[in-house]
Amino acid sequence: MKPINLAEKLDQFTSHWDPHVVADYNDNEVMVVRFQDEFPFHLHEDTDDFFLVLDGEMIMDLEDTSHPVQTGELFVVPKGVTHRPRADQECKVLLIEPKGEPNTGDATTAAPKPRI
Amino acid sequence: MKPINLAEKLDQFTSHWDPHVVADYNDNEVMVVRFQDEFPFHLHEDTDDFFLVLDGEMIMDLEDTSHPVQTGELFVVPKGVTHRPRADQECKVLLIEPKGEPNTGDATTAAPKPRI
Repeated sequence: MKPINLAEKLDQFTSHWDPHVVADYNDNEVMVVRFQDEFPFHLHEDTDDFFLVLDGEMIMDLEDTSHPVQTGELFVVPKGVTHRPRADQECKVLLIEPKGEPNTGDATTAAPKPRI
Repeated sequence: MKPINLAEKLDQFTSHWDPHVVADYNDNEVMVVRFQDEFPFHLHEDTDDFFLVLDGEMIMDLEDTSHPVQTGELFVVPKGVTHRPRADQECKVLLIEPKGEPNTGDATTAAPKPRI
């Protein structure tokens, strides 16, 4: 039970699309992740997907629209909605998902989530 | 479904200890709140309490320890743990709690939570 400095946690890795768990909130994992280039389009059948941009800019592509999301901005993708995060330049993000949720929505293609 | 700028949301009110809901994440409310001076010691029997400092510094007092929490730092208070947030100077915080959870842990003394 102590403060968690998100920038210090992000400094512990350099890989992209590789969420690292920094805390638990009820049945959710709180993660930091670095985005660069684009992730595949995917959806989560049973959960919303919480993104808060900590540094940089990401684009959230939905099926028909694209939304720039900048430092200090939050984007919640409702469950069942197909989306693709991407970033032209590296972007640092706080991510919240239920424990065990694969980041692609599909366990077979998901990155493991180390805890730091 | 669009980006939510947390600073712009915070600019919509000036009151302290008055969480405003800005988004939903599954069964949780995502809120912004301004802290100044001190809140009563309290606990939430059934939920963790998620604090992310967006601007400024808060102190999280627990029963035996005090933790400064600064901009870009996260503090999750586990359920059942008595705590008191305080701030010598105004501090802006992102707060996540289950929908309907009273901010004091007690519905009779809790602030209402407007949605902005």
